[in-house]
Amino acid sequence: MNRKWQLLAVSLVVGLTTVCASFAAGFYTHHEFARRRLQQLIQEDPYAYYISPKIYKVFSFFRTKDEADHRLRQIMKYGFPGLDDLRLYSDFVLSYDRRNRVAHWVCEHLQVDTLQSSQANRARATYRPDLSVPSNFRCTLADYRRSGFDRGHLAAAGNHRALQSHCNETFFLTNIAPQIGRGFNSGAWNKLEIYVRDLTLRFGSVYVCTGPLYKPKQRAGGKLGVEFEMIGLNMVAVPTHFFKVIMVESKLPLGKPYMEGYVLPNTALPDGLDLRSFLCDIREIEHYAGLKFFDGLRNAVFGSNYPRESQVFRVFG
Amino acid sequence: MNRKWQLLAVSLVVGLTTVCASFAAGFYTHHEFARRRLQQLIQEDPYAYYISPKIYKVFSFFRTKDEADHRLRQIMKYGFPGLDDLRLYSDFVLSYDRRNRVAHWVCEHLQVDTLQSSQANRARATYRPDLSVPSNFRCTLADYRRSGFDRGHLAAAGNHRALQSHCNETFFLTNIAPQIGRGFNSGAWNKLEIYVRDLTLRFGSVYVCTGPLYKPKQRAGGKLGVEFEMIGLNMVAVPTHFFKVIMVESKLPLGKPYMEGYVLPNTALPDGLDLRSFLCDIREIEHYAGLKFFDGLRNAVFGSNYPRESQVFRVFG
Repeated sequence: MNRKWQLLAVSLVVGLTTVCASFAAGFYTHHEFARRRLQQLIQEDPYAYYISPKIYKVFSFFRTKDEADHRLRQIMKYGFPGLDDLRLYSDFVLSYDRRNRVAHWVCEHLQVDTLQSSQANRARATYRPDLSVPSNFRCTLADYRRSGFDRGHLAAAGNHRALQSHCNETFFLTNIAPQIGRGFNSGAWNKLEIYVRDLTLRFGSVYVCTGPLYKPKQRAGGKLGVEFEMIGLNMVAVPTHFFKVIMVESKLPLGKPYMEGYVLPNTALPDGLDLRSFLCDIREIEHYAGLKFFDGLRNAVFGSNYPRESQVFRVFG
Repeated sequence: MNRKWQLLAVSLVVGLTTVCASFAAGFYTHHEFARRRLQQLIQEDPYAYYISPKIYKVFSFFRTKDEADHRLRQIMKYGFPGLDDLRLYSDFVLSYDRRNRVAHWVCEHLQVDTLQSSQANRARATYRPDLSVPSNFRCTLADYRRSGFDRGHLAAAGNHRALQSHCNETFFLTNIAPQIGRGFNSGAWNKLEIYVRDLTLRFGSVYVCTGPLYKPKQRAGGKLGVEFEMIGLNMVAVPTHFFKVIMVESKLPLGKPYMEGYVLPNTALPDGLDLRSFLCDIREIEHYAGLKFFDGLRNAVFGSNYPRESQVFRVFG
């Protein structure tokens, strides 16, 4: 009897040890498998390399470190001089242009229910610098003061009123650009923003990408040149134009989305101008901005034939 | 006897199954552990989100997909309009500016042994567009033709002569910018490139970051403004200045690295000018370029006190 118990105890211990060891072996095998594949990704993809410390942290269980001595790692040993400064706010995403101290682009997604549940009070929000931007690239309130330009929103405050914090975040100077006040910010640009909200109320789900343009113009001698002002001590660029690319998701299951692009010059525009006169070929905006809009969608839906003209207006009548 | 064998067989099967099951459980547990942590990273870090399809591919074993419905994913559902266009060549790394059709920055690491083993023949390399850049953002040979500007290298061809392919890659138009020929590309700029190679031969390991500047200047009325030309049908920006930030790794175990920055105007400069007259405060270059150089190193070595002046020249005498 005693012998039987002993045998049972031994086999239990052996069994448990085997189970634990096998479990650990499986755990470690997947760890090695994933680590090697991630390491390969990090060697081939510079974005993966850029965030590699964060990726390795995921494996903190075994304290993995990048030990492969690949060329990318050698060349970039002391860090990247720059990579688009992406900012994740709670209701919009933007890429900040550190050279011009104005965003490259701002992306928003408007939905009818959040638009209708307006809790936020615009009057309680104040313009303020985003202190997470390094001081050498940050613009401040002083840069706009007495510059003659409005602090114009890229992601409109009126689009983010579901929560006070959402509204407040649109007042970060990263989301602000120098705009002509009368005739632009309070004129045509405002009309365009209202139009986008109208579209949302009507169709339910609208994606908007907004940003500045620095368009070249003909100079003396027939040459093309870019010219724009810079304001303030931190030198904030005054864009020559602003664009908005709008994409309306179709409510129908296989329906095509609608897309249109607007370009408005940053000048005092006469009242009563039809918004339609600012419609612009999306590929042209892309060329001037160096961006590609809703690319994932367009490849799937339009192939290489991007919509050239307003499609929404055709529906609107 | 027969019973004993049966027992052995049964316990073997049970044992093996247990081992396999435990192994699989361990494998899967780590998979879930890593997947969840990566998913969290993807939700918090936009760069991780950007490459998330690639990250999930690492886990192709279980066909993982991003199913969390986070806000970043909602807003960026149809893709990023733009993220710095990083290009990984075999001996240098650059970020291409799609708006200006000239690189933002080019990073190189020069070493004495690769510099001395020059196999490549510059005459066999030809300028050519990098076809991996989308056509809407690509510049071509035609843009430079009869423009009055040289096709100036950012990563110098003479720095990459270990292999013919390395040299060839410096001739991609992504690494080229419009430069004034006489008095710049074949003058002071060339002298600066030779100086960098001299440093490498002397100190063994040198990091270089090169790029264009679009510096504002005083306009009529005391306002600051940026002005630059654009050439060709694809509108390639002509930078007003070019910078080079050089970092010499110290040979001593705890020795401080040396850093210096140069800014040269893109004009015909008189011969015989001392390179020292183009030395520039690195923070100033950073402000105009919107970049941060060798940041990983500087935080560790210099704290927030960046070297203002040439430190290398002090050693050189």
